[in-house]
Amino acid sequence: MARAARATSIQVVKARVLVRPKEGILDPQGAAVERALGALGFAGVSHVRIGRLIELEVADPAALAQMCERLLANPLIEDYEVLLDGAS
Amino acid sequence: MARAARATSIQVVKARVLVRPKEGILDPQGAAVERALGALGFAGVSHVRIGRLIELEVADPAALAQMCERLLANPLIEDYEVLLDGAS
Repeated sequence: MARAARATSIQVVKARVLVRPKEGILDPQGAAVERALGALGFAGVSHVRIGRLIELEVADPAALAQMCERLLANPLIEDYEVLLDGAS
Repeated sequence: MARAARATSIQVVKARVLVRPKEGILDPQGAAVERALGALGFAGVSHVRIGRLIELEVADPAALAQMCERLLANPLIEDYEVLLDGAS
C-alpha cells in the first residue's frame, strides 16, 4: 500500500493550451472558414478565428507558461491560455 | 425599453470548437513538439497532441455539430468538442 501511494505521488497533470491570433492580427484562415460556412448555408456565423489546441501531460504545470513563451506560441502575434485538467 | 429587449433577443453565442486527432491516429506534429520541449530542457512532458481551436460567434448554436461534421473537422480522423460561452 505504501508502494502504491509512492507511485501515485509522481503525478502528471493533463493540460490544454489554447493558442489564438491576437486581437487585430489578420486571420485569413478564419476569414476563409467564415466564408465557407456561409457558402454551405450556415447563416449568422461571425468572428471566426482559427488557432491551435495543444493537449499534453506534464509533471510540472508551473512550467507551462514558459513552454508557451518559448515554443508553443509566438507571443508577438498570438495569445495563449492554459487550462489544467479540463478546467476552463 | 421594449425596443432594447427586442434587440437583445437576437443573440449570438460565443463558441469554441476543439478539434484533435482521434486516439490511435498518428500525430507527427505532436511528436515533434514533444521532442522539441525535451530538447529545450522541459522534462516530464508526454502525450503531446496538436489540434485546432476554432472560435466563433453563432446565432444558432444547435448548428455547430453539423458545421463540425461538414467543414470544421474531418470526422474520419478527428474528434471534436464544442464549448459554448467559454464553458467546458
